[in-house]
Amino acid sequence: MLQSRVLTGARTVNTVPVHDTKGKVTGLKAEIIAVGTELLMGETQDTNSSWIGSRFPEIGLEPQWVTLVGDDLMRLTDIVDRAWRRSDVVLTIGGLGPTLDDLTRDAIAKMFGEEITTDAHLAAWLEESFARRGMSPMPQQNLRQAGMIPSAITVPNPLGTAPSWWIERDGKILATMPGPPREMMNMWTTEMAPRLKERIPGQAIMSRTFKTIGLSEAAADEMVGEVYDMEGVELGVYAKPNGIYVRAIVKAPTESEALTTLISAEQKIRDALGDYIWGTDEQEPPVRVAELLKARNYKLAIMESCTGGMLGSAITDINGSSDYFVGGGITYTAESKIAAGVPAEVIEEFGVYSEETAAAMASAACRTYGADCGVSVTGIASADDDTAPDGSVLKAGTVFIGVAHPDGVDVQQYRFPSRRALVRNRAVTAALLQLAQAIK
Amino acid sequence: MLQSRVLTGARTVNTVPVHDTKGKVTGLKAEIIAVGTELLMGETQDTNSSWIGSRFPEIGLEPQWVTLVGDDLMRLTDIVDRAWRRSDVVLTIGGLGPTLDDLTRDAIAKMFGEEITTDAHLAAWLEESFARRGMSPMPQQNLRQAGMIPSAITVPNPLGTAPSWWIERDGKILATMPGPPREMMNMWTTEMAPRLKERIPGQAIMSRTFKTIGLSEAAADEMVGEVYDMEGVELGVYAKPNGIYVRAIVKAPTESEALTTLISAEQKIRDALGDYIWGTDEQEPPVRVAELLKARNYKLAIMESCTGGMLGSAITDINGSSDYFVGGGITYTAESKIAAGVPAEVIEEFGVYSEETAAAMASAACRTYGADCGVSVTGIASADDDTAPDGSVLKAGTVFIGVAHPDGVDVQQYRFPSRRALVRNRAVTAALLQLAQAIK
Repeated sequence: MLQSRVLTGARTVNTVPVHDTKGKVTGLKAEIIAVGTELLMGETQDTNSSWIGSRFPEIGLEPQWVTLVGDDLMRLTDIVDRAWRRSDVVLTIGGLGPTLDDLTRDAIAKMFGEEITTDAHLAAWLEESFARRGMSPMPQQNLRQAGMIPSAITVPNPLGTAPSWWIERDGKILATMPGPPREMMNMWTTEMAPRLKERIPGQAIMSRTFKTIGLSEAAADEMVGEVYDMEGVELGVYAKPNGIYVRAIVKAPTESEALTTLISAEQKIRDALGDYIWGTDEQEPPVRVAELLKARNYKLAIMESCTGGMLGSAITDINGSSDYFVGGGITYTAESKIAAGVPAEVIEEFGVYSEETAAAMASAACRTYGADCGVSVTGIASADDDTAPDGSVLKAGTVFIGVAHPDGVDVQQYRFPSRRALVRNRAVTAALLQLAQAIK
Repeated sequence: MLQSRVLTGARTVNTVPVHDTKGKVTGLKAEIIAVGTELLMGETQDTNSSWIGSRFPEIGLEPQWVTLVGDDLMRLTDIVDRAWRRSDVVLTIGGLGPTLDDLTRDAIAKMFGEEITTDAHLAAWLEESFARRGMSPMPQQNLRQAGMIPSAITVPNPLGTAPSWWIERDGKILATMPGPPREMMNMWTTEMAPRLKERIPGQAIMSRTFKTIGLSEAAADEMVGEVYDMEGVELGVYAKPNGIYVRAIVKAPTESEALTTLISAEQKIRDALGDYIWGTDEQEPPVRVAELLKARNYKLAIMESCTGGMLGSAITDINGSSDYFVGGGITYTAESKIAAGVPAEVIEEFGVYSEETAAAMASAACRTYGADCGVSVTGIASADDDTAPDGSVLKAGTVFIGVAHPDGVDVQQYRFPSRRALVRNRAVTAALLQLAQAIK
């Protein structure tokens, strides 16, 4: 069984959603202050603000400002003060460590004109957690992390030694969050997001992200055009390395009304984008492939050309991938494809960029490694068009992906935006999705 | 020839340089305003600010603030105004496009109380560049990009349609930069950095970054301790995915004094870090490997296990890698190593994580693909220790890297911080460096 389908893709033109003023759902003004000289100096890339900012709308907050500030009490106090005056919700990230450089607590205390005192309960908890890790007695300076002010209550941080402060005053909220991304994400998901959502008055907010492949941003934007006009739905279209994402955020007075609107929006989006959608929300292709392979007890082998190892890298990025991934070949030349078991006459007759070669690569991968499934990638990641043996032109960005599985071999042809990094990234996503589709 | 050397590595403990207050070189206060609602919403990660921030100290600027702000005239004008009052140098990034959403020019004009008028020369240049790309007549809205105010002069942007504004007033500088990273980096390197450097009064600044592998941040920091005390030298130690970087920034009244100090600092750093240094400044291992292989007309093949495709991915990330890279195997299981030509008895006797298996893998890669050089990686990326066939314990993070070349096979053993992503990233760097060393 040899199937073929051509999906189109075009160059991404604009990262700002075209209709971003229509159907606007506005929320409470929120801002983020990310603390640390290393962020300003570019030694550490601040990814926390971006991560939280993308989650604000789902709970009804509108991101207004993100400020990166160094470990400097004057500047830190200045921005905390300004943020408190101009926004409804202020979140600080970082600067909660035990050293004298960690000044977030001091700046907030100074701004409110309050004194920091050591909280006995917190101190005891800190002593205990140090003892549990065999680090007793606790270094004296860690007592700084047990400091509190009268306006704040404590939010525990099970993954670190820096608890958060939660302050509600004058109808506003200020909260501190730890800087290490793992601690910050856990704190947001388990504590901050639920607490904030509870306090957003009289409305329910729901969101869903639809992940697509094979569409340009402009095409996706046009296809979902009708949804932009829906009452109470805010729609965004974003270009990500592994394809175009469409996110719908719904806001309504009650949960059931929000759900009704979201279901109706989802139906319209699914009708419009059809098979281009490969997943929703937090779904990622390597994880989906892992689930399916493990459920069927299938072993996987690969043979990749233009992706040059990226497909293998994505698969083995998952902890425990050795349960189902046996190995593969990076066959970057025609000779290496032949050495890996692709018949020379197939390459000669149809060329390295062809359905037939992709199919032969996938089958050879299965055979060589004794696997149940084989995935192959061959295509043009360079910026130049190529010519097939039959004289036809193969456009830059053309990629053939083959999947060999117990019931046969499927091949699909894709055309991605012809920039090296994009071709390679999208081909990896497409290969994983095509595999998932084949064994589902 | 089978060589072996054990390099140690330890868990990174702290991203803030320990001695960051000693030998401080202070500069003019500078700040960055990154413009775009997509940055606040987390749809696009702002990497520009981090890139520029890391380059500020080299020209004598001290990064004070980074603010991300949406496409909103009021908020944008507010932050431009505040930045102009509190800093010596203000750089805006983004918001220079042709649409009504692109408000950086408008905010600056409003702040200075000046009127934007269309610059005839700029308009002609824009018309021309559209005509050259076969897009004539130019869309009317692109004329916005030819707008100027009396206080500003134009800095051309050869990679895009958005020229920059350069404003010098009251002893201060404000400049706009385009948002697309490629355009921004080019603008910084060719225009902004030289112009700014020229205007920093009475001092010469030089910097050099030393890139190491096999050291923990704490160890590197301790080893260069003596350099912290040097007059006029600012030292920073940073953990990056491919190893620890040590950066020295030197500031002196004249170029020759700066150079003398930098040479003396470099000597001390090289004495302290020795062979742990693998490169300086912008050097990257895949590029170095490409140069060496091309110069010797060598073909390269690989066989990688725990890196699962990342080594191939790093090699093929370079445009033109098909000139020297033939292919490789991702041999994730013992069986797949044997299928790829590693003698079963070697694995049985010494185990998959051993010098002998690494050497056999590198040789087999050469043989299978008819290459001149072969590189192999085998090691423990999971968090659990392993046991060798002889009963000895292999610590998590242990990696063996083999390089087969025309004169023999070299193997080295490494021990990286035992976090999956770090082990994999550092192993790729180490493999490329070991290859470069072998064929140099």
